Amino acid sequence: MLIVKTTDNRQLTADNFPMEIFVYRKGSDAVEENFAVKDLPEILADRNNVVWIDFLSEKPEELACAKDVLLNVFKFHYLTVEDCFETRNQPKVEVFPDYLYLIVHGVKPEETSSANFVTKELDCFLGENYVVTFHTERFRSIKNVKQQIRNNTFACRRGASYLLHQILDQIVDLYMPIVDEFDDSINNLEERVFQMQKSNNVILEEIMDLRRSVARLKRISTRQLDVLHSISHGEFPQIPENVLPFYRDVHDHLLRISDLAESYRDLVSGLFDIHFSVVANKTNDILKFLSIFSAIWLPLSFIAGVYGMNFENIPELKSKYGYYVALSAMFFIAAALIVYFWRKGWIFQKDEEKKVDN
Amino acid sequence: MLIVKTTDNRQLTADNFPMEIFVYRKGSDAVEENFAVKDLPEILADRNNVVWIDFLSEKPEELACAKDVLLNVFKFHYLTVEDCFETRNQPKVEVFPDYLYLIVHGVKPEETSSANFVTKELDCFLGENYVVTFHTERFRSIKNVKQQIRNNTFACRRGASYLLHQILDQIVDLYMPIVDEFDDSINNLEERVFQMQKSNNVILEEIMDLRRSVARLKRISTRQLDVLHSISHGEFPQIPENVLPFYRDVHDHLLRISDLAESYRDLVSGLFDIHFSVVANKTNDILKFLSIFSAIWLPLSFIAGVYGMNFENIPELKSKYGYYVALSAMFFIAAALIVYFWRKGWIFQKDEEKKVDN
Amino acid sequence: MLIVKTTDNRQLTADNFPMEIFVYRKGSDAVEENFAVKDLPEILADRNNVVWIDFLSEKPEELACAKDVLLNVFKFHYLTVEDCFETRNQPKVEVFPDYLYLIVHGVKPEETSSANFVTKELDCFLGENYVVTFHTERFRSIKNVKQQIRNNTFACRRGASYLLHQILDQIVDLYMPIVDEFDDSINNLEERVFQMQKSNNVILEEIMDLRRSVARLKRISTRQLDVLHSISHGEFPQIPENVLPFYRDVHDHLLRISDLAESYRDLVSGLFDIHFSVVANKTNDILKFLSIFSAIWLPLSFIAGVYGMNFENIPELKSKYGYYVALSAMFFIAAALIVYFWRKGWIFQKDEEKKVDN
Amino acid sequence: MLIVKTTDNRQLTADNFPMEIFVYRKGSDAVEENFAVKDLPEILADRNNVVWIDFLSEKPEELACAKDVLLNVFKFHYLTVEDCFETRNQPKVEVFPDYLYLIVHGVKPEETSSANFVTKELDCFLGENYVVTFHTERFRSIKNVKQQIRNNTFACRRGASYLLHQILDQIVDLYMPIVDEFDDSINNLEERVFQMQKSNNVILEEIMDLRRSVARLKRISTRQLDVLHSISHGEFPQIPENVLPFYRDVHDHLLRISDLAESYRDLVSGLFDIHFSVVANKTNDILKFLSIFSAIWLPLSFIAGVYGMNFENIPELKSKYGYYVALSAMFFIAAALIVYFWRKGWIFQKDEEKKVDN
Amino acid sequence: MLIVKTTDNRQLTADNFPMEIFVYRKGSDAVEENFAVKDLPEILADRNNVVWIDFLSEKPEELACAKDVLLNVFKFHYLTVEDCFETRNQPKVEVFPDYLYLIVHGVKPEETSSANFVTKELDCFLGENYVVTFHTERFRSIKNVKQQIRNNTFACRRGASYLLHQILDQIVDLYMPIVDEFDDSINNLEERVFQMQKSNNVILEEIMDLRRSVARLKRISTRQLDVLHSISHGEFPQIPENVLPFYRDVHDHLLRISDLAESYRDLVSGLFDIHFSVVANKTNDILKFLSIFSAIWLPLSFIAGVYGMNFENIPELKSKYGYYVALSAMFFIAAALIVYFWRKGWIFQKDEEKKVDN
Repeated sequence: MLIVKTTDNRQLTADNFPMEIFVYRKGSDAVEENFAVKDLPEILADRNNVVWIDFLSEKPEELACAKDVLLNVFKFHYLTVEDCFETRNQPKVEVFPDYLYLIVHGVKPEETSSANFVTKELDCFLGENYVVTFHTERFRSIKNVKQQIRNNTFACRRGASYLLHQILDQIVDLYMPIVDEFDDSINNLEERVFQMQKSNNVILEEIMDLRRSVARLKRISTRQLDVLHSISHGEFPQIPENVLPFYRDVHDHLLRISDLAESYRDLVSGLFDIHFSVVANKTNDILKFLSIFSAIWLPLSFIAGVYGMNFENIPELKSKYGYYVALSAMFFIAAALIVYFWRKGWIFQKDEEKKVDN
Repeated sequence: MLIVKTTDNRQLTADNFPMEIFVYRKGSDAVEENFAVKDLPEILADRNNVVWIDFLSEKPEELACAKDVLLNVFKFHYLTVEDCFETRNQPKVEVFPDYLYLIVHGVKPEETSSANFVTKELDCFLGENYVVTFHTERFRSIKNVKQQIRNNTFACRRGASYLLHQILDQIVDLYMPIVDEFDDSINNLEERVFQMQKSNNVILEEIMDLRRSVARLKRISTRQLDVLHSISHGEFPQIPENVLPFYRDVHDHLLRISDLAESYRDLVSGLFDIHFSVVANKTNDILKFLSIFSAIWLPLSFIAGVYGMNFENIPELKSKYGYYVALSAMFFIAAALIVYFWRKGWIFQKDEEKKVDN
Repeated sequence: MLIVKTTDNRQLTADNFPMEIFVYRKGSDAVEENFAVKDLPEILADRNNVVWIDFLSEKPEELACAKDVLLNVFKFHYLTVEDCFETRNQPKVEVFPDYLYLIVHGVKPEETSSANFVTKELDCFLGENYVVTFHTERFRSIKNVKQQIRNNTFACRRGASYLLHQILDQIVDLYMPIVDEFDDSINNLEERVFQMQKSNNVILEEIMDLRRSVARLKRISTRQLDVLHSISHGEFPQIPENVLPFYRDVHDHLLRISDLAESYRDLVSGLFDIHFSVVANKTNDILKFLSIFSAIWLPLSFIAGVYGMNFENIPELKSKYGYYVALSAMFFIAAALIVYFWRKGWIFQKDEEKKVDN
Repeated sequence: MLIVKTTDNRQLTADNFPMEIFVYRKGSDAVEENFAVKDLPEILADRNNVVWIDFLSEKPEELACAKDVLLNVFKFHYLTVEDCFETRNQPKVEVFPDYLYLIVHGVKPEETSSANFVTKELDCFLGENYVVTFHTERFRSIKNVKQQIRNNTFACRRGASYLLHQILDQIVDLYMPIVDEFDDSINNLEERVFQMQKSNNVILEEIMDLRRSVARLKRISTRQLDVLHSISHGEFPQIPENVLPFYRDVHDHLLRISDLAESYRDLVSGLFDIHFSVVANKTNDILKFLSIFSAIWLPLSFIAGVYGMNFENIPELKSKYGYYVALSAMFFIAAALIVYFWRKGWIFQKDEEKKVDN
Repeated sequence: MLIVKTTDNRQLTADNFPMEIFVYRKGSDAVEENFAVKDLPEILADRNNVVWIDFLSEKPEELACAKDVLLNVFKFHYLTVEDCFETRNQPKVEVFPDYLYLIVHGVKPEETSSANFVTKELDCFLGENYVVTFHTERFRSIKNVKQQIRNNTFACRRGASYLLHQILDQIVDLYMPIVDEFDDSINNLEERVFQMQKSNNVILEEIMDLRRSVARLKRISTRQLDVLHSISHGEFPQIPENVLPFYRDVHDHLLRISDLAESYRDLVSGLFDIHFSVVANKTNDILKFLSIFSAIWLPLSFIAGVYGMNFENIPELKSKYGYYVALSAMFFIAAALIVYFWRKGWIFQKDEEKKVDN
């Protein structure tokens, strides 16, 4: 306990101690706050209390302080504490004799869009009568749960594992708007591909960003689903039977997100197919235009060329109306070609198929 | 029971009470109807009765009323009742000590087509001697089963789980016409791709809609299959051994739907390949046309150009028949080029390959 | 038995009774035939007999008659009998206390080709000492087995499950020629794609048909493999230990078919890649042709145009050999361009790479 | 034994009896050869002997003879003997009370290349103290093992299962050079695609052949891996614990082959992507060439055309230097266009990107 | 022991004996070094010691020496020793009664880049109180661990399995920078594809190299993951319960690498899609350019051609201002066509879509 005391003396006097402690005493109708680290051992010892310790460690000195408490007060395994401080972990769950350790990822709502899916890590420890959450970035979901238990102790009454469920539920709920945004983005991009006036790389870049985001969503949600699957199928003694349905509920939400991510992947790769087909269609249209243009002017120029020859004996040239006849011939040839292309379906057919279909 | 009574007083007098109760008493040869909520506890207590309570809750006050009954009369888990009222769940099954809760999806026949596959949720609770169905939209399948049990108590005699099977069977049967429509749509689109006169986005949009629909069908039917698999493989005590074959039958139908959805996905992505190849073929045809046209007129124009030169000493120009010789030369060059392209297989070959094949 | 008797009276006198009964009595050296429905209960009661009842029900009244026998004489589960009469089932196996029910699919050799893979259903019931087969279309495999047991009772001596194996073995063997035909079709299409003179949709349609067929083969053979896997791994008590190796043999044949179907799927989608690349190569060839043609005639026409200008002072025009010099210049320019394109590898290179490779 | 004797009398006197027998007597330091069929029962009866019987049956009469021995001397199950004589089996393993039956595939080194991967079947029977190998084509691996045991009885001392391991090990080792050849072929084709001067089908055909070969390698090695997996994980009593590591070793080699086959499949389908992109790049280059050519000559020809008009009043025509001014104008326009295309990056940029990268 | 002695006499006197021995005696606060082979049996016999023997065998005579020690001092299974000397193994783990044998792959940081992912093998033997590492190339990770245990015996105190974990952890950590480099390479290539001025094969070659590297990374990391999975899930008695979390930690890092490799594969194949679309867009741009050019000059040339005809009676030719009228007509036609193309969106639209999007 020596180290804790030292930390105590140096840090607990400061206003910015990066840790909030919520204690729900059995039967009470409000959660108590404003505890200090030195109170923790006593509070935790009473198995009737439900305790939530939330660390928000944004600065290095806060990190050091949090590490001290996690290692020395809670006696968490060195590796799990180290995992808290690493920033590139995937969602996972690990069981220890006294507690459960899990990493989950929440979306960063401010930064995240369908073009750039970003997550932040939350580390949770679930003991018999306590939940420890550790994060280096602010979570709206955690703020919400705090608000909720201050208003109503309902969530605390069912024990620590139910409290943890509330936090996870909030985190997963915040995925939903992002997932819907993906749907909109795909629809929107599809529409823009169909309407694009000129070939451009902007749409391609957006499709690629979307693909990258969907891949990330898929990767994270699959691992997160694994975590919730293990938890909700009763593998861990820390979570009592009667709380399992609540975890199954979170699991089902995540399953839907993961299924959607999978189908988005298909649809995004479909966007490339469509982009490609639309460009190929445009190529055809341009080539038809070029062909029609050439096909009309080349024969006319040829006729003009013929009568521009300098042979001494070209009877037509001497005819009074030769010029007008030639012009008329040219006109009729052009008209005939235009009719030919119209019959061939290369021109004047813009909206026919549309009419047939609808 | 207090809350129920209140609800009773306020709602049960109304004509639009959103709930139908069917009771089959053992040995009787008709189902009884027109029960009120207050009768439920007594009816359910008699284990020889088979009871079906169907909630159709289209309006908010009906929802509130239904919630009241589900929570207070049936004592269903809070989470499952909440799931009933959410509208974005996937098919799932959950077991509780007293009852089984499942969500299944039925097609919306009016709105659904191969271009827009839409489903609606049905929530079912299966107890020892009762089935509770809850839905916010009308189901033709449920109407059918009601009709059926009014005519013949056969479906009730085997107990609640058999009655539930009848409902699921009807729901799954209504997938079949949709699945067949997918087949037709794919064939139809394939044909239109082969016959398309001009490159157009309408077909592409339809293919993309189809792809989206098939993805949704695949997603829903896979999860629904999971549900039926769990049920039909005897995981749940609520369903007696002798009813299992009937659930296996529903499972097998769903398996077929799911297999077909998988193969449709392949075929739809094949439509893109075909569309693409057809457009590429058209590009080639247009380019051939352009090449032939240019190849014929350019040399002719060149000859005209040569004899349009103003050199003082061009002997041919003075020849009496020079003009006619030049015209003939042009004609023969054009003819030779046409023969050349015909030999090369670029023109006049329309139906040959076809003849060889058939 | 009442219903059977009625059926008896009405139908058994008719010549077209849709049912053949084969009885092998232990130790006998021939199978007996020409039994009537009314004999069945007695024959089946003797556990030493091996009985095969084959229903071929092509007409509605035959269906009704068969249904009667299946339900009332054999007492098969209502659902399995109903499955017999449905026509859109997938291969499956179901176990009941007294018998095994399985659906297998045989190819229709007359209608089936690699462009249109079609199957027909066979429903089999395997009891302790009997096999019941039900089908609405003629099976060559069943005809073969009948022929075989009339010649030699060998297949009956090992009991009903061995007899069923014989039928399944014959059915699976008839897949082989079809599977080989797929191989040939793919090779043949590949060759035709490489040799195609002009872009055409016929080949594309054939590739798409092949893709559809392979998908169907894959789907059916996978489910059939599941059935044989369950049977051959000893899950069912109806099949004695010593007959299992024979079912494993059928399973291994099906495994090969299913593996091949999988690799055909790959190769067929490779045909699209090839078609596409061949068309792209042709596009390039046409463009090269067009470019060469334009590149040669445009400069020549320009020279002719220059000397067709009407400036009063163009010294060359007055030169006596100006015309010949101009013609020669044109000739050399054309020759130089041809050499240039030859060096660039656009012309006169047809078979070089080929020589290098082989 | 009657049949054997007959065979004996007719065949065993012949020099070409298609069967070699190796007997290692415990403690001896050489294998004995030159036994006859009639010695087999006695030799096999002594459990201390390790016996290897190798059948090479290339002709029909040899096949008949081998069948006779396999069925009557070894009493192998009829089905396994029949499998030996079929030629289209996949690798598999089957266990019988007295022996293990396995089919493995070896490469045909003479015929096999990366463009045409061909295998031949080897059938093995492993009993308590004997190995029977049966093949209709010569195996270099079997020749090697024979050589080895003639030189050194080491491989026989550990019993029949170790001897079989030696044979399998040799067979799998001969896959390695082929697998390396695939790697080379893919690299080589990739290089040729990048350097190809003209679009040609030869490379496409080679890629398709490679794809077919890789698919076959994948299919065979996967099934072979299944066989070795079953064996090396101790499923079969015929293989003692202490020999398992040797089979695991063969399994690991096969695993590597199978992994490589999988990644080759990816790379081969990547060859199509590359071929396609290279052709598309060429298309672009040709189109740029055509555009540049047209863009330069068309305006020049237009100018020549303007001064070829026959208006009576065109002042420039009368100017003494008009012709030279016009020529200069043409020259400057051409130069300006060339600069324009150079700036646009269409010409004179051949190696820049290359320099930047390396 | 005879062989060891011989080896002893010949080799141990040399300075370059390819083997380092570290011994940590329980309770001591430093590791001892500079032991000889002949000391090994005694050191290993004391179960309280933790011994690490590291073989770096770069030359053939060192290999022979190492083999001798591995086989005769440690009595490792012949096969595992042979595996050490082979160079083309995949990561694997094998358990023997006395020890665990594993092969892991480390990256070669000097040679490896995202374009060429290369690994080197490390063979590890883990016994009750010793770790043997064998490698033919230098490992930075091994150097680091040596440094670490010389500074601090912490890693040795928890026993041999913890020491091995340290080595594996270091090896896996060195994958991370490479994995990040892949991410950068993909982003960088994507950017270059979007900005590429001309179609070139350099980028294509780099994409193909990347694809190859990613495939290799995927293959190696998947197998390595299998190895760590087996170890970290407690399958092996050599690793005590309390060390498992440390192996799970390494496993989780590898899982992340493997997940990333999978998503890189997707993104790399997306690079081909993008490259392809960008080239197709360029094709369109070039074709538009060509079409516009042709469409403008062809009609103008035609007009010039018309007034270059030699008809005697063309009234316009005699008009004083005919020439100027014709030139003006040409100018207006050109202007009208330019306006037409501008309206069609083919020219002057470069940055519009961009503005709309951002």
